Amino acid sequence: MEVTNRYITIKTSIDGAPKESDFEIKVAVLPLKVEPGTNTIIVKNLYVSIDPYQVNRIKSFSSSQTAINFTAGVTPGTAFDAYGVGKVVVSGNPEFEEGDLVVGFITWGDYTVVEPGVMLRKCDSMGLPLSYQVGILGFSGLTAYVGLFDICKPKKGEKMFVSAASGSVGNLVGQYAKLFGCYVVGSTGSNKKVALLKEKLGFDDAFNYKEETDLKATLKRYFPDGIDIYFDNVGAKMQEAEVANMKTFGRVVVCSLISEYTDAGKRAAMDMLDVVYKRIKIQGFLTPDHMSMYQDFLQKTYDHLHAGEIQVLEDISSRVENIPSAFIGLFRGDNIGKKIVQIAEE
Amino acid sequence: MEVTNRYITIKTSIDGAPKESDFEIKVAVLPLKVEPGTNTIIVKNLYVSIDPYQVNRIKSFSSSQTAINFTAGVTPGTAFDAYGVGKVVVSGNPEFEEGDLVVGFITWGDYTVVEPGVMLRKCDSMGLPLSYQVGILGFSGLTAYVGLFDICKPKKGEKMFVSAASGSVGNLVGQYAKLFGCYVVGSTGSNKKVALLKEKLGFDDAFNYKEETDLKATLKRYFPDGIDIYFDNVGAKMQEAEVANMKTFGRVVVCSLISEYTDAGKRAAMDMLDVVYKRIKIQGFLTPDHMSMYQDFLQKTYDHLHAGEIQVLEDISSRVENIPSAFIGLFRGDNIGKKIVQIAEE
Repeated sequence: MEVTNRYITIKTSIDGAPKESDFEIKVAVLPLKVEPGTNTIIVKNLYVSIDPYQVNRIKSFSSSQTAINFTAGVTPGTAFDAYGVGKVVVSGNPEFEEGDLVVGFITWGDYTVVEPGVMLRKCDSMGLPLSYQVGILGFSGLTAYVGLFDICKPKKGEKMFVSAASGSVGNLVGQYAKLFGCYVVGSTGSNKKVALLKEKLGFDDAFNYKEETDLKATLKRYFPDGIDIYFDNVGAKMQEAEVANMKTFGRVVVCSLISEYTDAGKRAAMDMLDVVYKRIKIQGFLTPDHMSMYQDFLQKTYDHLHAGEIQVLEDISSRVENIPSAFIGLFRGDNIGKKIVQIAEE
Repeated sequence: MEVTNRYITIKTSIDGAPKESDFEIKVAVLPLKVEPGTNTIIVKNLYVSIDPYQVNRIKSFSSSQTAINFTAGVTPGTAFDAYGVGKVVVSGNPEFEEGDLVVGFITWGDYTVVEPGVMLRKCDSMGLPLSYQVGILGFSGLTAYVGLFDICKPKKGEKMFVSAASGSVGNLVGQYAKLFGCYVVGSTGSNKKVALLKEKLGFDDAFNYKEETDLKATLKRYFPDGIDIYFDNVGAKMQEAEVANMKTFGRVVVCSLISEYTDAGKRAAMDMLDVVYKRIKIQGFLTPDHMSMYQDFLQKTYDHLHAGEIQVLEDISSRVENIPSAFIGLFRGDNIGKKIVQIAEE
């Protein structure tokens, strides 16, 4: 038996903002069988994660591609690997059976041939929607959790600013921080998103950065006494403005730099005198270094979900062919919450 | 009895590079007596420290001036306070007697009236030149020590880059790091200084940044496998180039920013993608937060000095009237090692 496997790839390296024409859908015939003893499995993909960091993998060069314990570059013509959920359709690995739900690194395509050594495990949805595995219970949630608790190390009552606050990671950082006892203000790119942050997610305050002309003054308005913690998802001008508004011993955790990913000319030039005289600490991190927090993260997040204390923001499109537009939309701020593409019905 | 007290001040705030004409010497008659019960003392100044950070105190605004646990701005017309050594000539404080040598905050002047609450203590030179109290055994040494051991937290064998490496702090950072077991390369501003670092101070290597056209490539040449620790005394372009050459989990300790102090337009715009993907930590610090290390620093430094394991680089001028030129010279790189002005004979 064989199936048609459609998967997304790039035609060539892309160094600016990605366009739909940069991508193509390849179609291949995939025999649904594996060689005995190879431990290979074939997975029918159900949901895949659409994340901004993928843009660094398709550049002609990015430090992301040589990063230790992280994803390499994507070679033009080959399938993108991406976090997601699928169902085993053929197994040559005694740890998996046909019909098992699995979560881990699959592809932006209909099917994934998963070789041994790829991060993939059986998935127990625990009565929650399967898509949660891709976002809130996947790397988006874990990134928010470890960035907040392992890097920022907040104290109750501290004042925190989150940029891209309605994004996949930002919305959860804000919610975890509120549950922990911080004062949280978020920035986002539309008035609808501002209302969402304040009314649905419980942020103390939020603003639409597109309506602000002087971000330094804006942050001063929201934090007249300064900011203890900045969870940075955007970089660029917002980072500059934020550093100018930090309190002494403030911490900047740099999670993502979506404003800079597609335009290196937007790099921040923060005032390092503030960094010295306010003893600011700025730290980048990558979630795979913090997998020891995974069980703790999962337990706490399940508990919050079951108690109705945390809201799940998902933005789900359908079908393989819509992956490029879903991905490109991230850089326009189209998504509200976690962007996911559903590849097939469960 | 009364004396003539000459002291240095500024005519008005100075926001660019300071010039000699920005300063003036005021002359006042100082009666050598103190009111009983005030705990005030009068000190005849002997050696005063000349430090780049003073430039931030004379600007119309700098975050240095509002920094917690640090020096405030200098008001035009008033005396500069500065670290130094002097001799008590009149004491209204039972803890001090006439003739005591003291070290702490005195002034860029002939005499200092020291009010209670000012950081000043009796000085035991322990058989070493008194000028050492101002540099290697004063805040320059302590800054190097706490910046290296409390912020950088080096491991033996790590590769370290120090900028302004023949400056008051940089030369000691490099020497402490070598004694600790790091591989150390320094940048400095003349070939004479390069030779000094390599031949006298034991740096593994050094270069003259003024002869380099592509600092990123320069650092790649000196650190083909990357830099673990950057002790930053200059900021600006060197900081950008350094971040591009960091290893994964590298640390940047920002001690001083002499290139940016007199020209905010030179601010660094480092590639924050490197900060994320290499998990870089960047941290500013101020020495007064780390006074708990003082005894440890002093003991270790005395031991190194007595064992002849550490070289003392002092650059001493004479007389109050030469303070402005000594200070301005810091920003031209005139000094080699710790800049000190001797005000009077011991």
